[in-house]
Amino acid sequence: MNGSIVRVILGNILKIAASFLLLPLVIAIGYGESGWKYFLITMLIGWAVGILLTIRKPKTTVFYLKEGCAATALSWIVMSLLGCLPFYLSGEIPSFIDALFETVSGFTTTGASILPDVEALSHGMLFWRSFTHWIGGMGVLVFMLAIIPMSGGSNINLMRAESPGPSVGKLVPKMRTTARTLYLIYFGLTIAEFLILLIGGMPWFDAITSALGTAGTGGFGIKGDSFASYAPHLQVTVTIFMILFGINFNAYYFILVGNFKDAFKMEEVRAYLLIILGSSVLIFVNIMHSVKGVWEALNQATFQVASIITTTGYATADFDQWNQLSKFLLFLLMFCGACAGSTGGGIKVSRFLIVGKSVKKELGSYVHPRSVKKIQMDDKPIEHDVMRSVNVYFATFMAVYVISVILVSIEGYSFGTNLSAVAATINNIGPGFELVGPTCNFGFFNPFSKVVLIFDMLAGRLELFPMLILLYPAIWRSRVRKLMIQN
Amino acid sequence: MNGSIVRVILGNILKIAASFLLLPLVIAIGYGESGWKYFLITMLIGWAVGILLTIRKPKTTVFYLKEGCAATALSWIVMSLLGCLPFYLSGEIPSFIDALFETVSGFTTTGASILPDVEALSHGMLFWRSFTHWIGGMGVLVFMLAIIPMSGGSNINLMRAESPGPSVGKLVPKMRTTARTLYLIYFGLTIAEFLILLIGGMPWFDAITSALGTAGTGGFGIKGDSFASYAPHLQVTVTIFMILFGINFNAYYFILVGNFKDAFKMEEVRAYLLIILGSSVLIFVNIMHSVKGVWEALNQATFQVASIITTTGYATADFDQWNQLSKFLLFLLMFCGACAGSTGGGIKVSRFLIVGKSVKKELGSYVHPRSVKKIQMDDKPIEHDVMRSVNVYFATFMAVYVISVILVSIEGYSFGTNLSAVAATINNIGPGFELVGPTCNFGFFNPFSKVVLIFDMLAGRLELFPMLILLYPAIWRSRVRKLMIQN
Repeated sequence: MNGSIVRVILGNILKIAASFLLLPLVIAIGYGESGWKYFLITMLIGWAVGILLTIRKPKTTVFYLKEGCAATALSWIVMSLLGCLPFYLSGEIPSFIDALFETVSGFTTTGASILPDVEALSHGMLFWRSFTHWIGGMGVLVFMLAIIPMSGGSNINLMRAESPGPSVGKLVPKMRTTARTLYLIYFGLTIAEFLILLIGGMPWFDAITSALGTAGTGGFGIKGDSFASYAPHLQVTVTIFMILFGINFNAYYFILVGNFKDAFKMEEVRAYLLIILGSSVLIFVNIMHSVKGVWEALNQATFQVASIITTTGYATADFDQWNQLSKFLLFLLMFCGACAGSTGGGIKVSRFLIVGKSVKKELGSYVHPRSVKKIQMDDKPIEHDVMRSVNVYFATFMAVYVISVILVSIEGYSFGTNLSAVAATINNIGPGFELVGPTCNFGFFNPFSKVVLIFDMLAGRLELFPMLILLYPAIWRSRVRKLMIQN
Repeated sequence: MNGSIVRVILGNILKIAASFLLLPLVIAIGYGESGWKYFLITMLIGWAVGILLTIRKPKTTVFYLKEGCAATALSWIVMSLLGCLPFYLSGEIPSFIDALFETVSGFTTTGASILPDVEALSHGMLFWRSFTHWIGGMGVLVFMLAIIPMSGGSNINLMRAESPGPSVGKLVPKMRTTARTLYLIYFGLTIAEFLILLIGGMPWFDAITSALGTAGTGGFGIKGDSFASYAPHLQVTVTIFMILFGINFNAYYFILVGNFKDAFKMEEVRAYLLIILGSSVLIFVNIMHSVKGVWEALNQATFQVASIITTTGYATADFDQWNQLSKFLLFLLMFCGACAGSTGGGIKVSRFLIVGKSVKKELGSYVHPRSVKKIQMDDKPIEHDVMRSVNVYFATFMAVYVISVILVSIEGYSFGTNLSAVAATINNIGPGFELVGPTCNFGFFNPFSKVVLIFDMLAGRLELFPMLILLYPAIWRSRVRKLMIQN
């Protein structure tokens, strides 16, 4: 493994993460809170270590897929270790593992909290918490397109870059042009939501943190009851923006360049909207009798469906109290996730579409044995490699999910708690059911379970393989062997 | 579709099923029970309808995969409709849907019961219940090898018989020779278990029903507490035979013909035994402190693991009271299932092996991008078609599972009840957790949920596609169209 390039990437990530701390620093000073010095200390640490790591140029800029994966995974870990320092140093989150859990939950846009009382946090810390969502949502897009290009079913096969990978120098300009457009969309939509919420009467601090949390499909709220106490028109606004942030950003790109035909033709987006519609109707009918008022039932159903399918995790109702049918549908939406190429987590609608089409084809081949049709998506045939990738992804996902539930089960909490806690973290949702329901928090788990869930949040956000690579012994062996040969 | 050949197959199945009723008829007469006349009436109905259906020869004996699938599915439905008559007519199971549930549960070797008090049943009915397991276990082997040859990962691709299928005339002799050997093994092992249980001190009626239930990996007991009140040495005997009936019968075939090398080389069998060992150890350690005595804990752990992985469903302990870790491991074993080519249900160890190997290969390719290895099983490369089949099977299985849980959730019982009730039926286990735990029964579900679970039992036993074909509109359309053209 080309270790020196990984070192330089990690150094740069630290410098970027440290720079982001300037915003909560300003907020803390603005509110006259003492928290500003912890942001400053963390910034200095980040910059110092970052400079140390980048002072020596990498020996070579060529790097392969495994370096890309390892660098991605390590970047997120290092970024979280730095980002949790303000919480820990200020004592607002006294336990280090809790501070790390909260920060990983932020960066991975999960939104699962260990805080029993969110409202006790200072403004600076609350802002930083919500800001990590925004950074995480954005950061994932960059890494996704730059190092592991995985958006849409159609270019998952790019991931199999078995030939020598692109050197960093060659990659940057291409990455930048694509990324710049996506940043623009991301930034624009966030500002739009902020302004609409502000005009709707939401206090500016609530509006900015809500917009940051929606944009990253994160879900950290600044109130104990998440979104339940806001006015219905603000809830509806957030519902709409959650759905918008769960759409494949390519659709916005098509619209920006005036290509409406391709934007509205995207099968994944249509399936995603259909799933939202169908689940909302089912849940609406199911909860109608237990919720006061038809509009309120409709508002609650759509808000919760949008929140879960986009893996945001805001809540306007304690859906853990809903009927089994509604709860199970939400549980399934956790795994469904949003569109590929959005900021949402989960397995992604496109993967389900591809697998669904292959099942339909198989069944059809029993009835019409001689018809040879290739599975298509957006009018393009799906290549064999893409099919294989999707199947392997499902299998790997289930394996990580099941092993995590086994490990968390050792603690002995209820079946629904364990199944939904892991589902809510690996899919980057936030709240689950029973002990981790929307009115509860993840603080009660022991450190071992918390580490498992931290791993799951990162694994889910980075689409599994980058994190799994770190567990693969050979990657460390080859590194050690190389070091031994060099010396 | 060639409807006339399906009609003749159904007629023959009815005649065979009716003939099997002779045994419970004799038992009922032997015990001086009045139930004998219901067995006789059912026999007469079966023969009469069977003769009516077979009196006209089929127009042609050529049939395709879709006829094979439809005939298999319809055979099992028709057989169950006939088999439930003694329960219903005698009034021992007063509700028709309950009688059908119990019979489908018997034939599919599930062992899930709607009876609140098993011991109230007459001997004739108890014997018939256990005998349906034995017929179902055997019957599946026949159909599997004759119509849908699916044993082992290696010949799953035989299922894709897209060229004109073999005519029945050509098929029968080949089917018979293979089936005869397998019957011999099946029969021999059943007799062996019966004799050992008898020598061990079990009453003969208990020994025969237990042996029939173990052989078919069914699980109907004749006592309210299943196997909990039998002596430990009898429990251990049953543990060993459950494990033996979960092994791929090809292994016994190899042993019979003296080919020990191939028998002990089978990867699936080794993996199956390793999973049993691993789960037993984990559960043993997990329950050791709550169960009196180390030997008792070991006995309970191995019995329950063997019972669940082989999808038998006998119980010596109320495992619903165990720790979460043990419960979740058992939940996973439900899906794992036994070896392909055994009488056990579930997804089958070989499918998990194949998927596991593909995940391992994918991860390895990140680290060693240039190594091109084909996935192997039993030293033979796994063909692309087999991989595809296995992946489609997993996806279809999950789809049927998830949709069934949604439908059962409408009733509103607990999360664990719904998840495990469907898992226990689609995998042909029997007991689940919570409201369907080993001390409970399935009687409380409403008729709609019972129909869903009946479908799941049949779908699980017939490996999904035969049952799904029945739901595929085109298969009925083409039949109707043909009729219209003929007239």
